[in-house]
Amino acid sequence: MALELNEERFVSTMKEQAEIGGTDGGGLHRLALSDDDKRIRDWFLERMEEAGLDVRIDEFGNMFGRRDGEESGEPVMVGSHLDSQPYGGIYDGALGVISALEFVRELNDRDITTTRPIEIVNWTNEEGSRFQPAMQGSGVWAGAHDIDEEYAKTDTDGNTLESELERIGYKGQQPAEPAAEYDSYLELHVEQGPYLEENDKSVGIVTGIVGFKWGAITYRGEADHSGPTPMHHRSDALVPAADVITQIRRLPGTLGDRTVGTVGYVDVQPNSINIIPEEVTFTWGVRDPTSEVLEKAYDHVLAEAAAAAEREGVEWEHEDRMDADPVYFADRCVDAVEDATESLGYDAMRVFSGAGHDATHADSVCDTAMVFAVSENGKSHNEDEYTSWEDCYKSANTLASAAFELAQE
Amino acid sequence: MALELNEERFVSTMKEQAEIGGTDGGGLHRLALSDDDKRIRDWFLERMEEAGLDVRIDEFGNMFGRRDGEESGEPVMVGSHLDSQPYGGIYDGALGVISALEFVRELNDRDITTTRPIEIVNWTNEEGSRFQPAMQGSGVWAGAHDIDEEYAKTDTDGNTLESELERIGYKGQQPAEPAAEYDSYLELHVEQGPYLEENDKSVGIVTGIVGFKWGAITYRGEADHSGPTPMHHRSDALVPAADVITQIRRLPGTLGDRTVGTVGYVDVQPNSINIIPEEVTFTWGVRDPTSEVLEKAYDHVLAEAAAAAEREGVEWEHEDRMDADPVYFADRCVDAVEDATESLGYDAMRVFSGAGHDATHADSVCDTAMVFAVSENGKSHNEDEYTSWEDCYKSANTLASAAFELAQE
Repeated sequence: MALELNEERFVSTMKEQAEIGGTDGGGLHRLALSDDDKRIRDWFLERMEEAGLDVRIDEFGNMFGRRDGEESGEPVMVGSHLDSQPYGGIYDGALGVISALEFVRELNDRDITTTRPIEIVNWTNEEGSRFQPAMQGSGVWAGAHDIDEEYAKTDTDGNTLESELERIGYKGQQPAEPAAEYDSYLELHVEQGPYLEENDKSVGIVTGIVGFKWGAITYRGEADHSGPTPMHHRSDALVPAADVITQIRRLPGTLGDRTVGTVGYVDVQPNSINIIPEEVTFTWGVRDPTSEVLEKAYDHVLAEAAAAAEREGVEWEHEDRMDADPVYFADRCVDAVEDATESLGYDAMRVFSGAGHDATHADSVCDTAMVFAVSENGKSHNEDEYTSWEDCYKSANTLASAAFELAQE
Repeated sequence: MALELNEERFVSTMKEQAEIGGTDGGGLHRLALSDDDKRIRDWFLERMEEAGLDVRIDEFGNMFGRRDGEESGEPVMVGSHLDSQPYGGIYDGALGVISALEFVRELNDRDITTTRPIEIVNWTNEEGSRFQPAMQGSGVWAGAHDIDEEYAKTDTDGNTLESELERIGYKGQQPAEPAAEYDSYLELHVEQGPYLEENDKSVGIVTGIVGFKWGAITYRGEADHSGPTPMHHRSDALVPAADVITQIRRLPGTLGDRTVGTVGYVDVQPNSINIIPEEVTFTWGVRDPTSEVLEKAYDHVLAEAAAAAEREGVEWEHEDRMDADPVYFADRCVDAVEDATESLGYDAMRVFSGAGHDATHADSVCDTAMVFAVSENGKSHNEDEYTSWEDCYKSANTLASAAFELAQE
């Protein structure tokens, strides 16, 4: 079922939102619960009211706008997030929210009443850069996190999330939980990866989201003068860390074609040119579409960490940081997205998401799927993020058409 | 020629100095040009004057005490440094200065006038932990550094070295340069390595000091989301750094039995669990007794750095940080030390120093040698540094006897 949006308005609305927190480098710096987040929320609230939606703000700041259907039953929810990474791109998140808004505007223009109600949503703090974790608002809403624990999270200046919600006036009255049984949730997002571009596709039919395991390893050796200490007397905490880092670079090639592994954080103590490192902590992460591969990767990393510690004669410990199972979206939602791309005649393919999204949490509440827009060079989380307006529009039409189909079921 | 010191006074003087800046952990925290450095300098100044020495302070704070000989000719200089590492040991440096003081006290007690004059010395800022570089005072004195450049060096609070010298009252009048032609320089220091202990020796006859090369390598890759970016799309700045770190751990085993290699400092940007590292800078250092091995090691490190960058597809650059040739001490001074150990009947062996000392710079001015005292477990630069009073005393007697021999030549 094809539903095409007003292209001119869609593009101008995307440009309008990008001005709030826009950077000189053409990106977006709109951190969760910052002044610019308040400005974009105020803007979005007005747009929802103009569109005649019934607006609710929940106690975690998630913003919902409901459009009634012929039946009062289970709504189809559509949306994403309006917060950005520090100096991030203008598409990440915003494209999904603006497309949801344009979807209900289009229904208004055409004077269509869908069978099911439709809700559009802006989730609080998807990015997780100012307050951790990422996908926080949808996580609280879905019951994955305790709201009081998340309220107490602080930014680097020591502000709590709750006080910042209150400061910008977005600690709402509604309970942060599903207000109804939902029929389904659809989310459009930029791919943030290279698969669509490599395959010359505009639109991705997302069938699931990779799972991941994160951990932190600490090695404790002996600080010593880097000159007179012979090599065989050393217990250098940095050497086993380097061994594991090189191993994690190689590991994915032994496990799966979609496996990735990363060491992003390293802390060396005392961190002096002339002293053998005494203590090194680093984080690691692996992602894969299957739990089997994640388990194997985890075992490999810990086995290598132990072997490296043994070789160098250092103490070590491991701390689990995160463990998220892969998500497989409901066939009926994925099929609705695929039907939309076929009806619209777009170049599309099924893909698995390499990054987490609010859809991860929504999937635990109702049937869910996602639409991806091709990302130039797969870049995101920086100002160079780019998707052409044509591809943005195609993906938005795909979202609207799929949501329309689900809403008419 | 054997000259034995007053053991009781030697030990009590060692203990006395260790109280100035002494730590609860039994170590010493007496940073260069700190209030405690002023206190130990005032104490040392009084002891030199009590011993009838002609005291001079040079414009870089180096402290000299001269005892006349029968001839007015070239003096024999003996000393080391009274500053310490942060929470360092009570022997490092101080043992050499106190032994020099006890040597002239012993000559006074015995009413001996040596043929040559004797000068004892406390060099400014040997440790290099508050102001860089290490061995700064002896380096300025020997002409290795420009005094105005060194005056301008700052600590982490932004204080210049010159202002701190003035503040503690130790910016003296004498030019910071050799006041005379010197016959020779002898320095006693703790070994800070394991060779003497491994060979059951109390005293080391030091024949030279390893050379070293230090550098810093920076890799620049691309920051990207650690989830959706496939491994083959990545340019991870940390991976080649890890490759080089593992290579530097292995390198010494391919080059020489005294070669050491260390990576002590690593900085990762943006250093986030969820972002592929964009820029990594790390320092490296190699040491060896021969220039040939140092050149080879340097070439190996740069070749590996280039290969690792090529593998990962990242930009890189290298910066030379330090380059010190190995020092080979004059036979006549080394022989004087060896004669002393033989006359005194001590268990001694010839060793090469793995760390730099003020003797490095003195060697460019006059014939030089060093005496080492065995270090328990080779530990130094921390509060666990330990040498028994018996071994301290033996090494002090060795220094005194060798200096006495040179002074009587």
